Amino acid sequence: MRIGELSQRSGVAVPTIKYYLRERLLDPGRPTATNQADYGDDHLRRLRLIRALIEVGGVSVSSARSVIEAIGGDQLDPFDLLGVAHDAVTPKRHPSRETEGWTAARERAGQFVTDRGWMVHPFSPGIDLLADVLAAVESLNVVEIGDNLDKYADAAQSIAGTEVTSVLARRETDNMLELVVLGTVLGESLFNALRLLAHQHESAVQIGFDPAKLGQS
Amino acid sequence: MRIGELSQRSGVAVPTIKYYLRERLLDPGRPTATNQADYGDDHLRRLRLIRALIEVGGVSVSSARSVIEAIGGDQLDPFDLLGVAHDAVTPKRHPSRETEGWTAARERAGQFVTDRGWMVHPFSPGIDLLADVLAAVESLNVVEIGDNLDKYADAAQSIAGTEVTSVLARRETDNMLELVVLGTVLGESLFNALRLLAHQHESAVQIGFDPAKLGQS
Repeated sequence: MRIGELSQRSGVAVPTIKYYLRERLLDPGRPTATNQADYGDDHLRRLRLIRALIEVGGVSVSSARSVIEAIGGDQLDPFDLLGVAHDAVTPKRHPSRETEGWTAARERAGQFVTDRGWMVHPFSPGIDLLADVLAAVESLNVVEIGDNLDKYADAAQSIAGTEVTSVLARRETDNMLELVVLGTVLGESLFNALRLLAHQHESAVQIGFDPAKLGQS
Repeated sequence: MRIGELSQRSGVAVPTIKYYLRERLLDPGRPTATNQADYGDDHLRRLRLIRALIEVGGVSVSSARSVIEAIGGDQLDPFDLLGVAHDAVTPKRHPSRETEGWTAARERAGQFVTDRGWMVHPFSPGIDLLADVLAAVESLNVVEIGDNLDKYADAAQSIAGTEVTSVLARRETDNMLELVVLGTVLGESLFNALRLLAHQHESAVQIGFDPAKLGQS
């Protein structure tokens, strides 16, 4: 198919497809004439994957490239790929961690993980991210978030358990790899969207609030 | 206190504080000498709030400004503020929604919310975000995510219920407003961090995998 059809079927604008080609996220098409190329179903599927990662999941172009290389390479087992997928969804910006409060929060985060009995690498970046939130919560004295920590962890563990079970139920390694990545990235966007909707519903339930009032929010 | 002390106590670098002053996220200090100003505890707390929103929560500078204006203004009730908070955490980038697949996904998303009995505004952007994920899932044929939709929704509802209950337990409106915002923004970062950690744990549990292998991931 021509680039126009590729754009129409994938929902990605032609200039964006050209950008992904320049960034080598997408392999070049087969040249057919000067300035024209032919694209196949592999290109379409790859483009849908790129779109899911970048436009739906909010993954950066460079992280998306790492993910795609990892899926394409045969060397990685699902756990190495889980590392790549986690890296893709881990925010690159993070607050200064050189404050006294952060060091204390990092200790509490590590202790929390230990207390839950979670088998997690002691230098996992997830613990640092948890400490970022705990330090902010502490500095602003938002006690409720700290008090609810176990409820957040229960929900996270329930989702993660479901996700890992789904990956293991797949038979072929190829499919498994893609699901690790897509589950990690799209699962996060999915949960965040549902949480916003559930906020509206719970506000309505708990105080008889008319959701129509929330308008476009 | 001088700007240096404000920086040390807040964990925000001096150039960043100056940027927030220019962007009017932070009120100017009391001038004491040419090019010097004195900052108080109100500045410190405001700066911690800005840091929590932008550096921990990933909110944009312009969304942070809206949030701060909303907290400062007395007109808003908690539900209007929930709208502002939701807007702050709603990704600004989004995929093209002009494809056939998206329209069908938007219908499924609306139906899903109705089937759950969620009292939600029918034009809520959360439904559009849900449709973005469902359209991506469908285009890539990742059936597992669709199959697990109710489990994601159960977990989201459990967290949202806890969060709304905490807000309502606060007595003073001022505190309530801040918790709506911080709960929405920091709660998202918190859940996402815990989910990544729980992935490692569940991988370890379900396949006897050694978490040390995950290394820095």
